[in-house]
Amino acid sequence: MHKKIHYHDTDCGGVVYYANYLKYFEEARTEFMLDRGVDLRELSKDNILFAVKNVDVEYRAPARYGDDLLIRTEITRVKNASLEFSQSAQKDDKILVAAKTKVVCIDNSFRPKVIPQEVNGRLNK
Amino acid sequence: MHKKIHYHDTDCGGVVYYANYLKYFEEARTEFMLDRGVDLRELSKDNILFAVKNVDVEYRAPARYGDDLLIRTEITRVKNASLEFSQSAQKDDKILVAAKTKVVCIDNSFRPKVIPQEVNGRLNK
Amino acid sequence: MHKKIHYHDTDCGGVVYYANYLKYFEEARTEFMLDRGVDLRELSKDNILFAVKNVDVEYRAPARYGDDLLIRTEITRVKNASLEFSQSAQKDDKILVAAKTKVVCIDNSFRPKVIPQEVNGRLNK
Amino acid sequence: MHKKIHYHDTDCGGVVYYANYLKYFEEARTEFMLDRGVDLRELSKDNILFAVKNVDVEYRAPARYGDDLLIRTEITRVKNASLEFSQSAQKDDKILVAAKTKVVCIDNSFRPKVIPQEVNGRLNK
Repeated sequence: MHKKIHYHDTDCGGVVYYANYLKYFEEARTEFMLDRGVDLRELSKDNILFAVKNVDVEYRAPARYGDDLLIRTEITRVKNASLEFSQSAQKDDKILVAAKTKVVCIDNSFRPKVIPQEVNGRLNK
Repeated sequence: MHKKIHYHDTDCGGVVYYANYLKYFEEARTEFMLDRGVDLRELSKDNILFAVKNVDVEYRAPARYGDDLLIRTEITRVKNASLEFSQSAQKDDKILVAAKTKVVCIDNSFRPKVIPQEVNGRLNK
Repeated sequence: MHKKIHYHDTDCGGVVYYANYLKYFEEARTEFMLDRGVDLRELSKDNILFAVKNVDVEYRAPARYGDDLLIRTEITRVKNASLEFSQSAQKDDKILVAAKTKVVCIDNSFRPKVIPQEVNGRLNK
Repeated sequence: MHKKIHYHDTDCGGVVYYANYLKYFEEARTEFMLDRGVDLRELSKDNILFAVKNVDVEYRAPARYGDDLLIRTEITRVKNASLEFSQSAQKDDKILVAAKTKVVCIDNSFRPKVIPQEVNGRLNK
């Protein structure tokens, strides 16, 4: 996924505000799953949601206004009730920010839920 | 209401990003109503919501990191199904940003609704 | 410009938070100018900036998670030191949100500045 | 530090959006340092900045619209050129979100810098 940096992504330090990468990573996970036939919007109508349980982010170098970032997403683990992702924000082949994220499957009362077989299968491919 | 400006409020132009004032104004309207005994969270449980219909903002001077802004809120009109607010963000008695906002009463299907008598009464005082 | 709505764009009312449209409109103005050969990043290096002076927004209908919005941008007035834009966020040909924005040309001390002839020419086409 | 949750903090899942806690934690670190006589705004004028190098966040339970969170901040390590913080967002004595953050001292070209003796001393107390 490509993400172009606009004014609202940056702060007065002149670089992208550290929390904003979590937005890009979330967008990229959503698109990654959609590419594999897993539509989070449709799932949410069936009371199947995914919530972030852990995120571990390493900031190596700053991105700036006008930069065009490539957000890379890999799924590193598919378990019964959780998924693990490894992601990075790159500029010209250089990793600026790297993140590992664990998401858990829940219902809309935030109770843990087993990931439906079909979803699991599509992500395990 | 006081609002201290932090990094995430600013952009790489070194000043508060223009959309963020709408957040402060929303917070201030919520607190303004709460001060008059109108609790938006409680009302939402009864399927009574308020949505912004119009906002007209004038940016006169920028606010910066570390500034402590005073957000002033006045209600200028209370109608059957809508409210009008006049607000400003001030620094040291100088108005930096001024806004006029019209909010309408709706249910959670976004259908217009008459403002409950009791709410209307509290805001009209 | 297309803008797909993600979780971070929405609020607990289930719809796009009202301030966020100002981000999309800013992105769209930037891309609109770039399409006409006016690169705001390059101009900022020459100490030529554009700041929003006024914005008047009308919210007609809500956008939701997963929606794909079309952001339309027109320039309605090019003056010596300011520009006026008319913009809308549409879904399936229906206007959800419409905005009129006035931006002024400034230097990095926020002093008004005449828009460079070349920029003016490109936008007047 | 107290943080009241407003509409713009939440997403359409009905809870605080996961990236937003990083804003509260940043605000809380700023206030924590200010309480110890370390004013980040003043330091930035002397070309001394702090940037987040790592953040590891654990999301245990969601916060909702209207909640009043207590953001707790502890400094767990003061080194020559970096600081480590342990923070949490609590509601009624229950930890909803916990985070460990490492920040590094840099100049405005993002080069590492030794933390000034005086700052170090104030934070080590």
